[in-house]
Amino acid sequence: MSAEAERKRPGRPRGASDTRERILKCARDLFARNGLDKTSIRAVAAAAGVDPALVHHYYGTKQQLFAAAIEAPVNPMEIIRSMQDTPVEELGHKLPSVIVPLWDSEAGQGFIATLRSLLAGSEVGLIRSFLQDVIATEIGPRVDNPPGTGRIRVQFVASQLVGIVVARYILELEPIRSLSAEQIVETIGPNLQRYLTGELPGLV
Amino acid sequence: MSAEAERKRPGRPRGASDTRERILKCARDLFARNGLDKTSIRAVAAAAGVDPALVHHYYGTKQQLFAAAIEAPVNPMEIIRSMQDTPVEELGHKLPSVIVPLWDSEAGQGFIATLRSLLAGSEVGLIRSFLQDVIATEIGPRVDNPPGTGRIRVQFVASQLVGIVVARYILELEPIRSLSAEQIVETIGPNLQRYLTGELPGLV
Repeated sequence: MSAEAERKRPGRPRGASDTRERILKCARDLFARNGLDKTSIRAVAAAAGVDPALVHHYYGTKQQLFAAAIEAPVNPMEIIRSMQDTPVEELGHKLPSVIVPLWDSEAGQGFIATLRSLLAGSEVGLIRSFLQDVIATEIGPRVDNPPGTGRIRVQFVASQLVGIVVARYILELEPIRSLSAEQIVETIGPNLQRYLTGELPGLV
Repeated sequence: MSAEAERKRPGRPRGASDTRERILKCARDLFARNGLDKTSIRAVAAAAGVDPALVHHYYGTKQQLFAAAIEAPVNPMEIIRSMQDTPVEELGHKLPSVIVPLWDSEAGQGFIATLRSLLAGSEVGLIRSFLQDVIATEIGPRVDNPPGTGRIRVQFVASQLVGIVVARYILELEPIRSLSAEQIVETIGPNLQRYLTGELPGLV
């Protein structure tokens, strides 16, 4: 190998990995903004300033690119586990104070994209299963008072959280979109807490 | 009538219904892009290549055209008008008690379907306009305390209502899906009321 090639070698992988990252970032942006159906490989390639063939080369089909784009930055179970020691009376505040900043982060964009596309498609069962099997099963029993209400309490919490996702990130309603994460938490926290531990006469 | 005309007849109504559909599609595009306030009947007519009088003939007022565009089972302005005499302190309960049964009705299904596809696509501006131009503009001033909070109070209300649409009709979470409309109203009503007239220290 020539000295010339030798010098270039360390640079090549780094350049390639930058490009890969850039493609993924553009894909996240476009999927989050336009959803899965209306985002083409061609559009992602254009945004990243590369040939569509390179996008295919790195990520395969659009579905595979999407799968890569939504890779959850944090394991949901880790979040749930991190609240194991939070008293139930504080969960209404704790939950959004952990989750909203995550959604606000760049990594959170993948989740928004997923939710959007799943909401429209036939794979809506993925979110349902996530909410019913993961969230309600883990947190429900902790707020199961009166007996049998745990699951539904958590579902009302989920409904408000999903509503914030839609209003803040998908519809981008102003001023909800520009509030700080803390302002969102302060505003919805007491309502989530009521769902978790308040009197819900309608459900008994 | 000649055999010729006889054969053509079944085609004529189809032509009219094509025009109707084209007008509605153009209206959707324009409402989504420019919002309700900045879209005129004249602009919709121009985009569809028809006379404004024809748009009025098919769809009535701009508000009614908008209602058709979002497949609302009832003109939203009529719902809002029906709450004009409801004291602000009762709106949190009144609002869902009017809206949830509508969503539950067969006519509501078209609206849910539209919402679903709008959430996923690039025409998300249609819902944004509905919430910002119609709901926040009409109800916001009634709950504007402290000054400047009216719009955002209504947006938090909207976030919870949208969350119910997602949980109950799109994700079909059980048991939220099987609750009666009254149970939904009893459960979310106090939370909506807090958004409308409660202390929201995070926002001041």
